[in-house]
Amino acid sequence: MYIQTIAWKDNAIRIIDQNKLPQKLKYIYIKDISSLWKAIKIMQIRGAPALAGAAGLGLYLGIKESKAKNFGQFIKELDRLIRYLSMSRPTARNLFWALERIRKKVLKHKKNPVFELKKIIFNETQKIILEDKIACRRIGEFGARLIKDNDTILTICNTGIFATIDYGTALGIIYRAKEKGKYIKVYVCETRPMLQGARLTTWELKHKGLDVTLICDSMAAYLMQKKKINKVIVGADRVAINGDTANKIGTYNLAVLSFYHRIPFYVACPLSTFDLSCKDGGDIPIEQRSVKEVRELFFKKPIAKKNIKIFNPAFDITPHNLITAIITDKGIIKKPYKKNILRIIKNKNAIK
Amino acid sequence: MYIQTIAWKDNAIRIIDQNKLPQKLKYIYIKDISSLWKAIKIMQIRGAPALAGAAGLGLYLGIKESKAKNFGQFIKELDRLIRYLSMSRPTARNLFWALERIRKKVLKHKKNPVFELKKIIFNETQKIILEDKIACRRIGEFGARLIKDNDTILTICNTGIFATIDYGTALGIIYRAKEKGKYIKVYVCETRPMLQGARLTTWELKHKGLDVTLICDSMAAYLMQKKKINKVIVGADRVAINGDTANKIGTYNLAVLSFYHRIPFYVACPLSTFDLSCKDGGDIPIEQRSVKEVRELFFKKPIAKKNIKIFNPAFDITPHNLITAIITDKGIIKKPYKKNILRIIKNKNAIK
Repeated sequence: MYIQTIAWKDNAIRIIDQNKLPQKLKYIYIKDISSLWKAIKIMQIRGAPALAGAAGLGLYLGIKESKAKNFGQFIKELDRLIRYLSMSRPTARNLFWALERIRKKVLKHKKNPVFELKKIIFNETQKIILEDKIACRRIGEFGARLIKDNDTILTICNTGIFATIDYGTALGIIYRAKEKGKYIKVYVCETRPMLQGARLTTWELKHKGLDVTLICDSMAAYLMQKKKINKVIVGADRVAINGDTANKIGTYNLAVLSFYHRIPFYVACPLSTFDLSCKDGGDIPIEQRSVKEVRELFFKKPIAKKNIKIFNPAFDITPHNLITAIITDKGIIKKPYKKNILRIIKNKNAIK
Repeated sequence: MYIQTIAWKDNAIRIIDQNKLPQKLKYIYIKDISSLWKAIKIMQIRGAPALAGAAGLGLYLGIKESKAKNFGQFIKELDRLIRYLSMSRPTARNLFWALERIRKKVLKHKKNPVFELKKIIFNETQKIILEDKIACRRIGEFGARLIKDNDTILTICNTGIFATIDYGTALGIIYRAKEKGKYIKVYVCETRPMLQGARLTTWELKHKGLDVTLICDSMAAYLMQKKKINKVIVGADRVAINGDTANKIGTYNLAVLSFYHRIPFYVACPLSTFDLSCKDGGDIPIEQRSVKEVRELFFKKPIAKKNIKIFNPAFDITPHNLITAIITDKGIIKKPYKKNILRIIKNKNAIK
């Protein structure tokens, strides 16, 4: 069964309601920009690379019925929608990257009539979606070279089909290694509070025939102590120019544990996740989410009373010194990160 | 409101059904040994020091109607009940310690008639319970000396009222420091899978008027990175002669994080938690619990499909080199652990 996380179908954005997993794989159709905004906010769709496609198609949904008579009116309306979508979630770089890319494309065609500008937005988003499919396969190809037969890999959150268009970044590497005939065992951190590891990652790894075991986040250290983990591979929501990486809360914890146990710690992401405007992790905004996610265990019976203060950052920053390598669609980046990140982004040439 | 976790009332063991917290503080009465066994197994009562009292009263429940006619029959029946209770949970030392202590006491009085042996068992258990109250206050007193005004302390699982008879080990230190007028902020790891931190610890810290904030286990690293944590204090289920400490799964994770961030990491427990028959952590049995605890989020809607393998160790081992000090009822033990643990246990003299 081929699964595409986000697609344009029947004049609507078709996504999978990821909050329904693992109970059911349910497609839903989104017909207006505010529903798309909400779907991002409540994480019916999530994962940095997937949010690029979602933002692009959302922007198209918002602008396609525009009554703008000229470019001035059109760009004003577009900018308003871009600002609106930008407020859905603050950390994942790819969402902003897609919106900026589309805006630039529109500016290049300011002479075109409005109906053509709409088509340009749609086509650019389709290009973003296609490029994600290719980028993930390239990440998989580069990353699979680092994986040995019989490796046991630990991962967190969801960095697979459901986090991208159809393949995955960190999980894409595992899929590619498996396609090449390597046997891999995967341990998945459940990833509190929203449990993307338990709900999404175990589902798709099993779907792809991998040997997968679910653990609570606090058990990763125990497995490392028992020498059960060879490699840790995680995704990224935003990478600063010095390599500092924002990713799902708990990632930094795994990085420290990997350092202490001398286990390679890899980050996998497309180049669209890099943000040259962030000199280091301190420049990356960290989303603070609803305390209900922690208190109500995926919105069920409360586990603490309402008068208890709760802290719920959605992401954390892993400093570059704890990262063994960053695996991108243009090659594997190693230390020194700043020099090599700039080289790979500016030259757009593959390095190894 | 004074809360006593375990008590002998109306010819029964009165405990708090800890699985009902934080929704309600409900006392239940246990009238036979197999109900007590089950209460321990499903964690209606838990916490290493509390299990000493529970095991003693459970043994009394099992033996009080004994028809044994002589000491030979009595000790045979007692040993069968001790073996039975020993199979409830394998890791916490205090449960075995209490049963061994009671058995020794009975052996010392083998000349006494059976009805008096029953009374001896009951009285010895009451002594264990009373001693726990005193030991916890002594731990609190010793430990409070390490706490500064305005400290921010991180803890895991429950090591307070509900883990002991009425005061706590690691939490007892916090209570004592507060009684001495120190302002303390406490961060509590929710402690997956059974959520003792979220359900029990936040409840009792709030009850005692502390400033408490709940976090997911994976967020501890983030707080340390942001320099929000001064000290980590945890309890212990069993301490080996070299200082290696078994405690709730996730404790070792916090120890590594504390080491990396140069934060003092303290273990608090009574001497009854030490096991001289364990030369190091490798000798301590780790309980593997039901995968349902991970999969079904405290027995609610599944978060992963049934075909997903799950790993659920209930405890982990923190090597002694990661422990700053062990705070006991006889004083604070520092490195070298083996020498100092032996000294404090053999001499039974307080050291500082």
